[in-house]
Amino acid sequence: MKPTKDIVIAGAGLVGSLLSIYLAKKGHSVRVFERRADSRKASIYQGRSINLALSNRGWRALEGVGVAEDIKRISIPMYRRVMHDTKGNLSYQPYGKDGEAIYSVSRALLNQKLLDIAEEMPKVSLQFERKCVGVDLEAAKLELEDPNGLRTEVQADFVFGSDGAFSAVRSAMERTDRFNYQQEYIEHGYKELSIPAGPDGSFLMEKEALHIWPRGDYMLIALPNPDGTFTCTLFFPYEGNPSFSSLKTLAEARTFFEEVFPDALALMPDFDEEWTHNPNSSLCIIRCYPWVKGKMALIGDAAHAIVPFYGQGMNSGFEDCRILDMILDEEDTWERAMERYQRERKGNGDAIAELAMRNFIEMRDLTADKEFLLRKRIEAKVAEKHPQTWLPLYSMVTFSHIPYERALQIGKIQDKIMKEVMNRSDIEEMWDSPEVEAAIIEAVQRYL
Amino acid sequence: MKPTKDIVIAGAGLVGSLLSIYLAKKGHSVRVFERRADSRKASIYQGRSINLALSNRGWRALEGVGVAEDIKRISIPMYRRVMHDTKGNLSYQPYGKDGEAIYSVSRALLNQKLLDIAEEMPKVSLQFERKCVGVDLEAAKLELEDPNGLRTEVQADFVFGSDGAFSAVRSAMERTDRFNYQQEYIEHGYKELSIPAGPDGSFLMEKEALHIWPRGDYMLIALPNPDGTFTCTLFFPYEGNPSFSSLKTLAEARTFFEEVFPDALALMPDFDEEWTHNPNSSLCIIRCYPWVKGKMALIGDAAHAIVPFYGQGMNSGFEDCRILDMILDEEDTWERAMERYQRERKGNGDAIAELAMRNFIEMRDLTADKEFLLRKRIEAKVAEKHPQTWLPLYSMVTFSHIPYERALQIGKIQDKIMKEVMNRSDIEEMWDSPEVEAAIIEAVQRYL
Repeated sequence: MKPTKDIVIAGAGLVGSLLSIYLAKKGHSVRVFERRADSRKASIYQGRSINLALSNRGWRALEGVGVAEDIKRISIPMYRRVMHDTKGNLSYQPYGKDGEAIYSVSRALLNQKLLDIAEEMPKVSLQFERKCVGVDLEAAKLELEDPNGLRTEVQADFVFGSDGAFSAVRSAMERTDRFNYQQEYIEHGYKELSIPAGPDGSFLMEKEALHIWPRGDYMLIALPNPDGTFTCTLFFPYEGNPSFSSLKTLAEARTFFEEVFPDALALMPDFDEEWTHNPNSSLCIIRCYPWVKGKMALIGDAAHAIVPFYGQGMNSGFEDCRILDMILDEEDTWERAMERYQRERKGNGDAIAELAMRNFIEMRDLTADKEFLLRKRIEAKVAEKHPQTWLPLYSMVTFSHIPYERALQIGKIQDKIMKEVMNRSDIEEMWDSPEVEAAIIEAVQRYL
Repeated sequence: MKPTKDIVIAGAGLVGSLLSIYLAKKGHSVRVFERRADSRKASIYQGRSINLALSNRGWRALEGVGVAEDIKRISIPMYRRVMHDTKGNLSYQPYGKDGEAIYSVSRALLNQKLLDIAEEMPKVSLQFERKCVGVDLEAAKLELEDPNGLRTEVQADFVFGSDGAFSAVRSAMERTDRFNYQQEYIEHGYKELSIPAGPDGSFLMEKEALHIWPRGDYMLIALPNPDGTFTCTLFFPYEGNPSFSSLKTLAEARTFFEEVFPDALALMPDFDEEWTHNPNSSLCIIRCYPWVKGKMALIGDAAHAIVPFYGQGMNSGFEDCRILDMILDEEDTWERAMERYQRERKGNGDAIAELAMRNFIEMRDLTADKEFLLRKRIEAKVAEKHPQTWLPLYSMVTFSHIPYERALQIGKIQDKIMKEVMNRSDIEEMWDSPEVEAAIIEAVQRYL
């Protein structure tokens, strides 16, 4: 029996609340402090959320604390991408094999569910509206401020910073010697729009799908919600033409949507209001190391915030919790466990950051590309016939638990193989032939 | 006549003090605030300084305000590298053509001289021991704290942050949306050691040279001071073997030095004291963008701190001042000038950061490499005969005013050309031949 610890968690978002459950199950006593108000009591929509897409890594971490079934009831499976061209013509691309799906879920509902479960555990206490204003890494001490400006200190044996992309715990680490840190904003931002439900809560587009309007340098996407609505997100450059800067008036935005997203605009009665009032939000990638300094460790977005294009931000944070839980079981001492945690997870954090940027290009550009779709068809066929030999990159990331770092490595080799295959002059006629299939299998054996 | 401004400069280091002189000469009124005490009144040696090597970019910026001659009197030219092997055998490599040198100068003396000049100008005021504790970018306002904890606000038309690698102004920018930032610590740190003067202030090694003990993954260097001493710096990994971690005791450090730096150790009577008490200091590269936010701009290390291996940290900061001065003359409005300043200097900051890391590898590893030294000899010969066609990279960076970005670009092409040449099986016999010379000139015409 290992000694239990007095743990403090900064941040009661998705990762912080899940982590509190994992740690309390191990017998640790856990105090969680959150800057925001309790969203179960007062919810404020700020015109930005980016729908979450739960996939296998997330589900597995939720299963680990027994909440997966509850969550599944409030989520919608999305089995395929539906691509919309400028004429409103549709094309399709399945995400995986039959039955494989990613799940659209509301961030708020998921967070509330996790908080409910955490709160029921005797070893967990939650406090909201506590802003972290001071961090003493070596003493495992936080200074917290309540809404009246009253400050209190809390001290623990160990502190986890699950306080997100703009982590206060990480800010303190950043001021220590030899702490590597990068915040990188990409050239695109996003704006949220919406498609309302039809009569009787019906869906105005295919329900169990992720809709994409790929337009090369930018794209619109839509994810279904249980109430029949779709949350739409325009990912768009800040500068250049077209961009948030170039569309100076609502009229210009409307004209632009009429031209490039006519079928989506036709389903957006609130476009004018939403375009005008919803903010343009930025997208940031955070990289840092070490993740453990003194008696504190970073987890989730605080350690590795990424862009949302692979739907893996939450999933990777949940996986952090599951792997940490496993490592704490396997290692003799807390120190060794934390050292192994940061070493194992850092490479995977970097890999999913890279994969997410690659998937942006795939979604906005390649899904409108005939050659790319043919390549995906060939891969799907080979994967179906040789499941031990070929698992497409998307499936490795989304439907498997292969470490992201390894998935990226294999994916790069697959790219090389498929590039050779697609270079065949007869590929359009021969794509379905035993010859092409054999060439791929032979190449796998050569490279992997 | 352009309108003059009320300018505040945060930081009275080398770049801040030079900038104050440039701006005051234009008629602006300039208040400079410095966190540290006035080094002209109370100097504290902290066991770390890294000698400065002034080169042409720095000199030109100093000439622009008429102080170059004064500084030259307190500096020592270094005409060549002197490499020391483990047996104490010496080899040599000139830095440039006859008469070209880099200049060893004391950071403290140089800073004091610049402060003296700034202080004499009626348009400049200097205040020391004013720590910046608050920054309002949009209002051009700083909150400053004196040694008694008393806080005052100063407001200006525009603020420059020349407050170094750990800039308070930049920290405020870092918390604004879409500010890209990176702090990257390299795997090596440094420790300062010293060689005293001989009888009557004589030099115990060649005076007008930069001494290097290249040892592959690490190195020792020594720069001369006017009083006959040498300041030595060991650049050494933090981890691995050998490293600061692996040398656990003074005895182990001594044994190590006896083995790899015997001739240097023999000249270091204070080795035991210095090894024990001088700190191991880290080396950090800072990259960020934009450099201008609201009514503030970054300059020097605050915008682009680099590693010291090209001797260009100060030189690039001084060049920032000279180029900014020129741009302010050429542009109609302050806003356009600042936009052009950041655009032009950012690429050059990135380039010198990359060049400085490349030069570390050259110094610690390649200067002990026969093939590398042969390549340098070939380049020197071609450069001498075809000065319009071939200027070696080191000379472009150190002795010219070619933008760093362009120098790096040309340097990469030169690498490619010299790689082809060095691949000749007969290069050792033929290096001095007209044939090799012609091949190089032909390649330049092909690539450049």
